[in-house]
Amino acid sequence: MAASLLLTNVRPMAGPARDVLILDGRFAPEGAAAPAGVAVEDGGGALLIPGLVEAHTHLDKSLLGLPWYRNEVGPRLIDKITNERESKKRLGMEPQRQSERQAILSVANGSTHIRSHVDVDTVQMLEGIEGVMATRDKLADLIDIELVAFPQSGMMIRPGTTDLMEEAMKLGCEVVGGLDPCGIDRDPKGHLDFVFALAERYGKPVDIHLHERDTMGGFSMELIIERTEALGMQGHVTISHAFCLGMPDRAYVAELTERLAKARIHIMTTGPAAVTAPAVAELRRAGVVVCSGSDGIRDTWGPWGNADMLERAMFVAQRNNFRRDDEVEAALDVCTYGGAAVMERSDYGLAPGCLGDCVLVEGEAIADAVASRPKRNLVVKRGRIVARDGACIAEAP
Amino acid sequence: MAASLLLTNVRPMAGPARDVLILDGRFAPEGAAAPAGVAVEDGGGALLIPGLVEAHTHLDKSLLGLPWYRNEVGPRLIDKITNERESKKRLGMEPQRQSERQAILSVANGSTHIRSHVDVDTVQMLEGIEGVMATRDKLADLIDIELVAFPQSGMMIRPGTTDLMEEAMKLGCEVVGGLDPCGIDRDPKGHLDFVFALAERYGKPVDIHLHERDTMGGFSMELIIERTEALGMQGHVTISHAFCLGMPDRAYVAELTERLAKARIHIMTTGPAAVTAPAVAELRRAGVVVCSGSDGIRDTWGPWGNADMLERAMFVAQRNNFRRDDEVEAALDVCTYGGAAVMERSDYGLAPGCLGDCVLVEGEAIADAVASRPKRNLVVKRGRIVARDGACIAEAP
Repeated sequence: MAASLLLTNVRPMAGPARDVLILDGRFAPEGAAAPAGVAVEDGGGALLIPGLVEAHTHLDKSLLGLPWYRNEVGPRLIDKITNERESKKRLGMEPQRQSERQAILSVANGSTHIRSHVDVDTVQMLEGIEGVMATRDKLADLIDIELVAFPQSGMMIRPGTTDLMEEAMKLGCEVVGGLDPCGIDRDPKGHLDFVFALAERYGKPVDIHLHERDTMGGFSMELIIERTEALGMQGHVTISHAFCLGMPDRAYVAELTERLAKARIHIMTTGPAAVTAPAVAELRRAGVVVCSGSDGIRDTWGPWGNADMLERAMFVAQRNNFRRDDEVEAALDVCTYGGAAVMERSDYGLAPGCLGDCVLVEGEAIADAVASRPKRNLVVKRGRIVARDGACIAEAP
Repeated sequence: MAASLLLTNVRPMAGPARDVLILDGRFAPEGAAAPAGVAVEDGGGALLIPGLVEAHTHLDKSLLGLPWYRNEVGPRLIDKITNERESKKRLGMEPQRQSERQAILSVANGSTHIRSHVDVDTVQMLEGIEGVMATRDKLADLIDIELVAFPQSGMMIRPGTTDLMEEAMKLGCEVVGGLDPCGIDRDPKGHLDFVFALAERYGKPVDIHLHERDTMGGFSMELIIERTEALGMQGHVTISHAFCLGMPDRAYVAELTERLAKARIHIMTTGPAAVTAPAVAELRRAGVVVCSGSDGIRDTWGPWGNADMLERAMFVAQRNNFRRDDEVEAALDVCTYGGAAVMERSDYGLAPGCLGDCVLVEGEAIADAVASRPKRNLVVKRGRIVARDGACIAEAP
């Protein structure tokens, strides 16, 4: 649903105050005449930024709105995966309802786009996919949601999962997911050959969780680069987390970075504080697109997360020791333009002709907004107001 | 100023709901009868936690309330130190006013105690000390503030600074500070001999900023341990930041940890995301007291910080990959009891007889409050309400 809206007295990217017109869902050229009777919102001198992009989360398994979950899970990755798979029914993690709750919180906090990984496994089968698809359709006027079919529990180690992955793509998932080809799935060639073949068969991009550290992660990354180039999928592959890019061997990381840039593979980082992490400035200097996301929000993995991508920009900045204004601006760029590039949205941004997806927020400067993270004054999706004063127009179930 | 207050329907440390009575500024035993006419506050089932402790900040040089400072400072520690010293006058960083602004924000967010390092150097001389002391006295009924005389620009490399440090102690600073004996002051023996001699002369504790990494930091730490033991200052020495305890050589770290525990030296960590950092769980298991603080808040070093020690507990938790409820509870313990122990407050806590310093905050569990960080419902200092609904009773200048 496209609408027209005149935002008066706003400061695009902290620049001089001016009026901004959205006409039939797209930004009009500066100075274009507003049609009679157009809806008007007084921006009060607030910052105008493009819609925030939540480029990595798990809508299907948040615990938002459910009773407090006392977390007593073991320390290994596989402990968390197993515990989650076995807890879903018991805890009432109904994918449609939970994804709607989280997506509405995202809208309230200014996100206009979400890429969500959604579990596909032999226990839950395609219930997660179907639930999040229902939310995607229900909230289509509020936020763009795309689904990554995500084999959270592994594929090679859990027979039957590859068939379900194919079913998920037939149902309409926008992206093929993958996960730790060595660390979890124990068969990097088998795992990646399947992921890339599926992507080729359905003409869809790839987004692979890669928690593997150091040289094991580097090895998996090399295999991903080789397949991306062999299949001509440059620009359509994302590696999420990529902890290995924070390894101490910086010469090897520089080599991997160069190869990632050449293959136009994107990197998603949450700015994690406790593990080695990609160096955002280095990647961007090399020409690699970097995006970010909340990852899981209040789930069985931990209590963290609030779907606020301005706060995420702060985490990314702090993880990378960004302090200067230009550095903090780069962190916001990761959480806006970076995510939009990864989601292959060509009509994203504040330029004339782009879709009218934007956020009004108080702040003296971009870095002020990122550091202070006040409630969003206004969130606009294709010219329509979808949140005001930190509250979405839709109520969470 | 001590007062009496009956808090009804509160959940101490997320336990069962009950009434809590503060009599003449101290917690009364459970079940003690409330005197007629005592002030009553309905807690509405909120969590009751002890007052938060901001155990490491720099009240004298926040930019709160001043025009936006566009940060274009160089990357080295010495760049930030030099830039700050040379910018204070130009930017209007008047120590009394700025410290009052920050301290009032701390009260609003539930801190009842602050340990503030305050710059002592040959440019600003003792103006910072005098300004923060004025704030300490002005806000004495709202929050306890103690000052660390802090040679931010070095002592051995800046002649005249040691005399000023001695003057600061004569004026009534509560703690002797120090800074990177190797990395900044280039004379570890000279620096530490002076710091410890001054502390001995005035019978005061020591708190030393140690940003030095790896074995250089380990060397400085060894020198600090030696002096602590030689002077019988066990329990009265804190090492702030202690980045070196995050070094890869875990056998050496284990040895240092054991020596720190034996010398009863405390560690302050902000939970920094971008540098190696002390492992909080390991230190606590070894018996080392760990506290935390915001460090600089919105200053010339960076835009970060909001004086919210619940948010700080989140940073400490995330830096240490704490996810389980018991782990997040430990992070809050660092930001409450840990800080109080470092500030040598024997009458701190929720037990009968302790000073009535506490915070009411919404949350289903401790980890919920730390992850959600809602505005504080009520902040109480010695039985007196000093903040309500996120606002301090005193207005910032």
